[in-house]
Amino acid sequence: MDLKQQIERLKELKTQLYQKDFLLTWEKSEDELKMVLEVAAILKNMRDENISSKVFDSGLAISNFRDNSTRTRFSFASAANLLGLHVQDLDEKKSQIAHGETVRETANMISFLSDFIGIRDDMYIGEGHKYMLEVGEALDDGYKQGVLPVRPGIVNLQCDQDHPTQSMADLLSLKEHFGSLEALRGKKIVMSWAYSPSYGKPLSVPQGIITLMSRFGMNVELAYPEGYELIPEMVDIARNNAKVSGGSFHIGHSMTEAVKDADIVYPKSWAPFHVMQQRTQLLQKGDANGLEDLEKACLAENAKFKDWEYNEEKVQLTKNQDALYMHCLPADITDISCDAGEVSKDVFEKYRIPTYVEAGFKPYIIAAMMFTNRFENAPGTLSEILKNSPKRVLY
Amino acid sequence: MDLKQQIERLKELKTQLYQKDFLLTWEKSEDELKMVLEVAAILKNMRDENISSKVFDSGLAISNFRDNSTRTRFSFASAANLLGLHVQDLDEKKSQIAHGETVRETANMISFLSDFIGIRDDMYIGEGHKYMLEVGEALDDGYKQGVLPVRPGIVNLQCDQDHPTQSMADLLSLKEHFGSLEALRGKKIVMSWAYSPSYGKPLSVPQGIITLMSRFGMNVELAYPEGYELIPEMVDIARNNAKVSGGSFHIGHSMTEAVKDADIVYPKSWAPFHVMQQRTQLLQKGDANGLEDLEKACLAENAKFKDWEYNEEKVQLTKNQDALYMHCLPADITDISCDAGEVSKDVFEKYRIPTYVEAGFKPYIIAAMMFTNRFENAPGTLSEILKNSPKRVLY
Amino acid sequence: MDLKQQIERLKELKTQLYQKDFLLTWEKSEDELKMVLEVAAILKNMRDENISSKVFDSGLAISNFRDNSTRTRFSFASAANLLGLHVQDLDEKKSQIAHGETVRETANMISFLSDFIGIRDDMYIGEGHKYMLEVGEALDDGYKQGVLPVRPGIVNLQCDQDHPTQSMADLLSLKEHFGSLEALRGKKIVMSWAYSPSYGKPLSVPQGIITLMSRFGMNVELAYPEGYELIPEMVDIARNNAKVSGGSFHIGHSMTEAVKDADIVYPKSWAPFHVMQQRTQLLQKGDANGLEDLEKACLAENAKFKDWEYNEEKVQLTKNQDALYMHCLPADITDISCDAGEVSKDVFEKYRIPTYVEAGFKPYIIAAMMFTNRFENAPGTLSEILKNSPKRVLY
Repeated sequence: MDLKQQIERLKELKTQLYQKDFLLTWEKSEDELKMVLEVAAILKNMRDENISSKVFDSGLAISNFRDNSTRTRFSFASAANLLGLHVQDLDEKKSQIAHGETVRETANMISFLSDFIGIRDDMYIGEGHKYMLEVGEALDDGYKQGVLPVRPGIVNLQCDQDHPTQSMADLLSLKEHFGSLEALRGKKIVMSWAYSPSYGKPLSVPQGIITLMSRFGMNVELAYPEGYELIPEMVDIARNNAKVSGGSFHIGHSMTEAVKDADIVYPKSWAPFHVMQQRTQLLQKGDANGLEDLEKACLAENAKFKDWEYNEEKVQLTKNQDALYMHCLPADITDISCDAGEVSKDVFEKYRIPTYVEAGFKPYIIAAMMFTNRFENAPGTLSEILKNSPKRVLY
Repeated sequence: MDLKQQIERLKELKTQLYQKDFLLTWEKSEDELKMVLEVAAILKNMRDENISSKVFDSGLAISNFRDNSTRTRFSFASAANLLGLHVQDLDEKKSQIAHGETVRETANMISFLSDFIGIRDDMYIGEGHKYMLEVGEALDDGYKQGVLPVRPGIVNLQCDQDHPTQSMADLLSLKEHFGSLEALRGKKIVMSWAYSPSYGKPLSVPQGIITLMSRFGMNVELAYPEGYELIPEMVDIARNNAKVSGGSFHIGHSMTEAVKDADIVYPKSWAPFHVMQQRTQLLQKGDANGLEDLEKACLAENAKFKDWEYNEEKVQLTKNQDALYMHCLPADITDISCDAGEVSKDVFEKYRIPTYVEAGFKPYIIAAMMFTNRFENAPGTLSEILKNSPKRVLY
Repeated sequence: MDLKQQIERLKELKTQLYQKDFLLTWEKSEDELKMVLEVAAILKNMRDENISSKVFDSGLAISNFRDNSTRTRFSFASAANLLGLHVQDLDEKKSQIAHGETVRETANMISFLSDFIGIRDDMYIGEGHKYMLEVGEALDDGYKQGVLPVRPGIVNLQCDQDHPTQSMADLLSLKEHFGSLEALRGKKIVMSWAYSPSYGKPLSVPQGIITLMSRFGMNVELAYPEGYELIPEMVDIARNNAKVSGGSFHIGHSMTEAVKDADIVYPKSWAPFHVMQQRTQLLQKGDANGLEDLEKACLAENAKFKDWEYNEEKVQLTKNQDALYMHCLPADITDISCDAGEVSKDVFEKYRIPTYVEAGFKPYIIAAMMFTNRFENAPGTLSEILKNSPKRVLY
């Protein structure tokens, strides 16, 4: 299908993405999710055909990473650059924010000439999403009061509840892999906890996966050792989504059972919700000893589940002995990054390239979130770009 | 007034801003200050009307922050981006500058493809302005000797003597608030010391305010507890400016007295000049114990003046019980950022939005300083931009 | 000679720079080196005539500095900006790379929308060049497998073996100084060890100089105190190059002897190869005490050679008492940056401006390496740019 047709098809979608932040996939309609996926695919195809989708002549995109990141940082920078924006990092250690500035003030101070703010805030349960809402309210107020010439859009680059740029990139890669969203209907996807020698990994990836994949009629299987539960609200959302979409949602406590006949397996470590809550309290109190004790206890608990490794034996149980392996990367790979990890060396190597391809969609998903936030008639704007077809490499 | 008229009016001003650094407002003529204010307002209006004022296709703007900053950092990045330049940070901790490079050499090494250097150096009394002059001389020499293709302009982003991007943004916001520069004539502006639980805040903001506001026929009242004096040279400049401009300049030692019938009140903490001198010597010697002792003594001294808080009681004394409150932000707000601070929570909240608007002029002031430094006939160049009216958001 | 003629002359050169990394000068043919030099000179002349050589409308250039840098960092940023790319730093301390990611994965993760990666990795003997090859293989694989839309080019910004952006900038400055590459034939260039109060300076500059300058018929004299040898392979390459090019290569152990009748003198400190090997092992083991002991021993050894200072007495021995002094900067200057250093204050001051000019070529050399990597018919592309002559400063 050529670019013109791809854009034409968008016109059937009813969306209200214009000037709305992209914080949680479950706040978006099915059509809105489809729009973001399609716009991402179109932006990628355009770039592959050397068509520049620069829509801003100048402007800033602010990145606010309250936790470490390589790939999301680069994805955000790539997305901003693709659209013509310049990234400016809000580094809270460098800035005066540490000295008691309120969120409200800072949100305005960084936004006078900004079009977007990308935020990662995934360390504290109950805090990340709240922080993004707070920033959003401050921007609403600043815009309403005439402080800001435009209301900058917020893109959630990972919070305590969701990781929409990851899950949407994953979904786009599934769509491309299986041919269409329709083809995903009835496919079995397993989101499984997996062993890792580290502890305290965020819940946002598994939560993002079960809440999003349940929107499109897939059979979602969540597996984890007893006690490693996710935030109950997100599990409820996934369960409900499955009902609405005609798929299914099931929780089990054995990786081996879960992967049987699976089309897709996503094995990834996380810390139990109750541990993350404790950890949040200890971090907020600055209780270093408490954190150390918690880490020790958790690592000891984790160590009971070293058999939660995704390996060739388990691959053999999957559909055609060849379920698609997914991961947000970096994975803890047995005998490569650690002695015992989430996935065996052989299995990772077999599916390594698909995981890279999967990651490659993220910059375009972020760009699509920005694009649909900023252009009320996104298909129309894409048509104009296609008509002009400005070159990215100019010569 | 439309953009065309705004630009037309500039042609009456006689200025020599071309290829001159912007270091201290008192080195600039009244016409020059007006030109920078007007160009800033025009650039802002252009952007609000989606006209791109990108005047560079490529080029670097170097930021050299020798002290922390959020808002000025973002303002500088915004200004550079608005004109088409890319910011490159000179992070002296990352670089080899710590290992004995001379200022002269570094100034040239970073400037081969640079158009501007923004410098903040406000920690050491007697050093900041001197450093900027040294960089300027190095650039003059490099340009003269053929090392540099252009002489990069320097913008003072705060030194020990002045903070011109702040004071000019403040002045622009007063001009917009009261309608014109002419309307400021005879208005009473109070630059008052205020209590803060921290110590060692720079003198450049109060010095910048009294030296600039005294240029335009305002009645400038400087108030501080006995002993909290500013650098005498800057006070002399303010006093003389007031004479020349037909305004007045007065020093008092009571915030309550000072704010009576004030049109504008700017309450802000600073450390006394003699303390800053001591602190500079201790910092230069690396005397950590001495610094700790000094801090303790100063905080104890400050604590005697907790009643130097700007609050509703004092607002009631001002003109129409509604003087405009100003601050460079972030303010130390009682019951928000501290137990007792520069301003009460209620008063701050009442004037919060005007302080945000005030801050929003800074990016355009910086851009105007760059613009007038680089384009000999600034009004002519603005006319050309307006004629072309290239879009900022392209679609 | 005008730009048109300069470009015309390039058409005689037979090169295969297209889509090849620039890692080591000795992997490139004479025509290829000439092409890079000429393209650099043309890009510089274009910018001096306000012609923008922006060839990318968007795209990233990744900088990966595994060691400190000011001038090369700015040179890389300048080169990227000149061509229309935006620099994104891969800061390994900020990122998750420290947590066991493989090079292979990271190389792909940062490259989805990247056109170039500049790498500095000069700390470990036997590692820097190897790392760059590894990154290159990962990118080859990612491109072949469809993960990456283009194969980003790698520019070596200094490794354990070579420092090609430095040595090529040095060569371009010699070409401009003496009028042509042909004019360098038969000139005597002395690469001499010099005393410095620090230790552990990389070998890549002297190795880069002797291997490159020996390509063009120069008489290369390498001088160092007994024991301060370079990596033997690079010395062999220099010796062989001299044979092939009709120049000469000689090693001596006296600066005084070496500089006699020299046309060019490049006095610079380095640590002996065997020390760098030991240091690499200690760094890899994280042996802090061992490193301290090694440093002490080396400094004591160095101190025996304080007379290896390039000063007026030695200048008097050179051709016409006026050999061109070169340095990659910053130099250890006696009585300026240290008590006893590589060069006397007077001699440095006399040749200071030429060393600045020398450094000014580096951004253009990097841009030329990128340009020839990306445009198969570099002269043709330059002709097109010249025909369009887009302005850099637009008004």
